[in-house]
Amino acid sequence: MRTFRMTIAYDGGAFHGFQVQKNAKSVCSVFQDAVEIICRERGAVKGCSRTDAGVHALEYVLTLTVSDYGGTPRQLKGSLNGLLPLSVSVLSCTEAEPGFHPRYDVKEKEYLYKIWNHESRSPFWEGRALHYPRYMDLDLLNEGCKVFLGTHDFSAFCAKHTDVEDKVRTISQCGFSRQDDLVVFAVRGDGFLYNMVRIMVGTLLRLNEGRFTVETLRAVLESKDRRKAGITAPPHGLYLHKVFYD
Amino acid sequence: MRTFRMTIAYDGGAFHGFQVQKNAKSVCSVFQDAVEIICRERGAVKGCSRTDAGVHALEYVLTLTVSDYGGTPRQLKGSLNGLLPLSVSVLSCTEAEPGFHPRYDVKEKEYLYKIWNHESRSPFWEGRALHYPRYMDLDLLNEGCKVFLGTHDFSAFCAKHTDVEDKVRTISQCGFSRQDDLVVFAVRGDGFLYNMVRIMVGTLLRLNEGRFTVETLRAVLESKDRRKAGITAPPHGLYLHKVFYD
Repeated sequence: MRTFRMTIAYDGGAFHGFQVQKNAKSVCSVFQDAVEIICRERGAVKGCSRTDAGVHALEYVLTLTVSDYGGTPRQLKGSLNGLLPLSVSVLSCTEAEPGFHPRYDVKEKEYLYKIWNHESRSPFWEGRALHYPRYMDLDLLNEGCKVFLGTHDFSAFCAKHTDVEDKVRTISQCGFSRQDDLVVFAVRGDGFLYNMVRIMVGTLLRLNEGRFTVETLRAVLESKDRRKAGITAPPHGLYLHKVFYD
Repeated sequence: MRTFRMTIAYDGGAFHGFQVQKNAKSVCSVFQDAVEIICRERGAVKGCSRTDAGVHALEYVLTLTVSDYGGTPRQLKGSLNGLLPLSVSVLSCTEAEPGFHPRYDVKEKEYLYKIWNHESRSPFWEGRALHYPRYMDLDLLNEGCKVFLGTHDFSAFCAKHTDVEDKVRTISQCGFSRQDDLVVFAVRGDGFLYNMVRIMVGTLLRLNEGRFTVETLRAVLESKDRRKAGITAPPHGLYLHKVFYD
């Protein structure tokens, strides 16, 4: 038995999320298709997070356990990259430390939400960023972000159909930055509820549009009522960026 | 007769360059297909530059002259974007100043060459950057860039099959920068010969690999001999970035 720890990147547009699904292509199943060719077994995969359909990952962490593989981690990485579709790439591969669990050991995660902020769509950000043509007031948006900082019950920012009971999460960093016509929302915290980042973005855009004030935003959070928040922003702007361990 | 000045962006991977070609899809022909639906004529298009097959453009400038169009420039932009494939986008459209010529009036152009500098390929830079897995010494590369600054005969950095006679060009800016795993070479000058930027990149990578010194690079430039320079780097890393007018 050998267990490898890997970091992978994927373009979520090609997949129905990371998790194996019935009748839908997932990152994990495509990954295991490649593992099967190399190791003659599909192995056991543990991922750091479920990602929704269409959501991208820049540095997703997983472990792969196989009963038998004779090569080095670097060789395994190379073989996998030779077999995987171009939408998935193994960035790093090492022997996992004993007992390491990519999901349970997570201390914090960082997500990015990318917004192409131009009147016209971009050939380069198609399917990779939300196209949002209106003026974005980053000072105002960053004022709004401060509402989320700290420890709160994020029930108002969680999709209704979830079975998670404890909806208290701690956000340590949250803010917008701009590079030319690309605006990036970055948020880091100890955990995220179902659709949480996407609802945060949908709600912050209401603030940008003058339909909410910073005070409304605070009241929405305190209401713990999903119906008071904004829409769920589409998945194709969202990237799982980094996962932090001890 | 009305003449519009437009800035467009395109993903060059879908096209055999800007210029209309026999039996090959070009940006200009796809653009005129859309113009024809709106204006019932293909119009006259003047572009700021020929770009090679596979080369991208972030802010390509062109003029379109049509005998009759009743709407505003903004409406024309919107209609074109509704008809163009996702690989092409009109970013801006205004009435052209009388006498403006997008190619003859160019003072300087800036090109970018993007390099994904990681051992593994990236799902996000596939077809949009050169994948170069080796260590890149940016200090050394930037020393090499200084060789190109100023006015030189760039014959050694020009594809052999060209009919341009005067090969003297002035480079005003030239250098590498890094943002995480993406390295960007930016070069600005009053004009560029056929394949010039791509040969510059291919030659600078030789410097990076220790196969050339900065002195060799200078000797290559002075030799005016294409055979002494490095390979022509592939087109998919190259972006026409900005075109400068008075």
